[in-house]
Amino acid sequence: MSLKKIGERTFKLNNPPSILGNYSIVGPKEGDGPLKDYFDEILEDDLWGEESFEKAETKIQEQTIRAAIENANLSLSDIDLLLSGDLLNQIVASGYSARGLSIPFIGLYGACSTMTESLAVGAMFIDGGFGDKIVCATSSHFSSAERQFRFPLEYASQRKFSAQWTVTGSGATILSAAGEGPFITYVTPGKIVDPGIKDASNMGAAMAPAAIDTLISHFKDTGFEPSDYDLIITGDLGIIGKSIVMDMMKEEGYDLEGIFTDCGAEIFDPYKQDTHAGGSGCGCSAVVFNGYILKEMKKGRFKRVLLAATGALHSPLITQQGESIPSISHAVTIDINRI
Amino acid sequence: MSLKKIGERTFKLNNPPSILGNYSIVGPKEGDGPLKDYFDEILEDDLWGEESFEKAETKIQEQTIRAAIENANLSLSDIDLLLSGDLLNQIVASGYSARGLSIPFIGLYGACSTMTESLAVGAMFIDGGFGDKIVCATSSHFSSAERQFRFPLEYASQRKFSAQWTVTGSGATILSAAGEGPFITYVTPGKIVDPGIKDASNMGAAMAPAAIDTLISHFKDTGFEPSDYDLIITGDLGIIGKSIVMDMMKEEGYDLEGIFTDCGAEIFDPYKQDTHAGGSGCGCSAVVFNGYILKEMKKGRFKRVLLAATGALHSPLITQQGESIPSISHAVTIDINRI
Repeated sequence: MSLKKIGERTFKLNNPPSILGNYSIVGPKEGDGPLKDYFDEILEDDLWGEESFEKAETKIQEQTIRAAIENANLSLSDIDLLLSGDLLNQIVASGYSARGLSIPFIGLYGACSTMTESLAVGAMFIDGGFGDKIVCATSSHFSSAERQFRFPLEYASQRKFSAQWTVTGSGATILSAAGEGPFITYVTPGKIVDPGIKDASNMGAAMAPAAIDTLISHFKDTGFEPSDYDLIITGDLGIIGKSIVMDMMKEEGYDLEGIFTDCGAEIFDPYKQDTHAGGSGCGCSAVVFNGYILKEMKKGRFKRVLLAATGALHSPLITQQGESIPSISHAVTIDINRI
Repeated sequence: MSLKKIGERTFKLNNPPSILGNYSIVGPKEGDGPLKDYFDEILEDDLWGEESFEKAETKIQEQTIRAAIENANLSLSDIDLLLSGDLLNQIVASGYSARGLSIPFIGLYGACSTMTESLAVGAMFIDGGFGDKIVCATSSHFSSAERQFRFPLEYASQRKFSAQWTVTGSGATILSAAGEGPFITYVTPGKIVDPGIKDASNMGAAMAPAAIDTLISHFKDTGFEPSDYDLIITGDLGIIGKSIVMDMMKEEGYDLEGIFTDCGAEIFDPYKQDTHAGGSGCGCSAVVFNGYILKEMKKGRFKRVLLAATGALHSPLITQQGESIPSISHAVTIDINRI
């Protein structure tokens, strides 16, 4: 077994896993935004018949996974492993979804980086021979996240302009050793980077340096230039974080003009939808990837995409104890060709 | 690449990773228990100079990882990946430890099953060629867990006899493609099993069915009998959960008499230490494995061990919403020989 590491921390897959199926479900606000035509299912209300926001998020994630498996023409018994996580304490949306699905489950925590964390781990498992059909999934819910991380919704507190709006939605991707693509070809796992920001209403600035660290490592390790990609897209930095990445990458010698955007900057219309600095949450990159990106890849618009979801690994308790917000970004390359 | 799955859900490693180094740090109570001579470091107080229990747990985990790397005669720059998780909301003990270490980090959440979850994922990565040196780690802290999951310590609430005592401690294991062993040879990932228990003071009963499900799958998939092992040890079921596993496994035709115990049943003396049903927490199986088990394996007492840490994937919020406690158990085989 030869080591698949290239450079400092990127893995090049020998047998790139293929994406066999995918699905996205979003809430009403996301279904009213600029990417509405790309989502597979738009909910009319964000409780979806459940008694609590946490149970609604669980249902959204479980139904997304079931639909992605169906989209791949598979059944639950075909699945070797489920890899998922979410923002809720003890990742309960994922744990309770996995209870309903009853398939082998590896729980992940990468905050809003979970979509690429699950794709990275899933791709490595399949390339290593550990399963032939793996589900990679995550979810978030505006109302369950807001009351856990910030304020009770009933406060109707005013939100800062730097604040982002947590996406209600879930995305799931089915990876397999065989298939027609798109393929996961490279994985660059993240390192924790902490620029010292303590304001949970300015997550874009807290997470941007982690994205920059991973993007630069990816380019150095692979020898790729930004122009080798048709699209480079970070997870949920929003409008503020996106502009920080553009500026700082340029200072480092990487011109991302015209190639780069951020899932959180694309999912809402900040003026019409009152979403301030843009979208956030695990569900943000999950639905933008499984909705917009994969559908545009299949149409031929993007042939090679670098997806770098970003996550902030704080808790309200530790922030109250005076700690700053550490962040991480895991990147995966998605290629139309197996290369 | 041939598929490494055998049976329903067990993976047999082609190139079993070797354990290169390991370390355990425990709090004063664990250092006063029956296994005290096996731990590498016993703290005199569980705050260890920090301002909060969460920061103390972070320090314990980070120092354990640093010491395990040193124990393997390696330095931080040799490490390809850190795989860790813990019980705290947003796994902050692991995230902030990873910040201090600045190495590529994959965050896991398996509640108290995290030691075997991290060993399983780490072994699969190394066998698949994704890194040559991987750290697998976890931690828990009585005081950070108690106030998060049950009651503020200041309440001095009476504890039920079925309640367990969260271990203060951390364990870390260094896996590598090369080495003299012990080796990780099989991995059986867990499925969520939920027997419907809603009492967070009776975790042994909530988790026992998940352990049974994984043990039976492991035996069926591999063709092993319990007597093929010198020791079969679950994670943190404690005294009540241990007896449920013994009884129910016997009903299923597996006699574990004399071979089986549980980390939570071993770590404390329930009579002298007032720990009721025994130890629990991610740190429980982590310190029993990295302390007791690995040291007895190196002495030659155990040649083949099946370690099945167990985790309960609930949150206080979702339990308050009336949900029962779903559990999981991931098992790994540790062999003196590469087989």
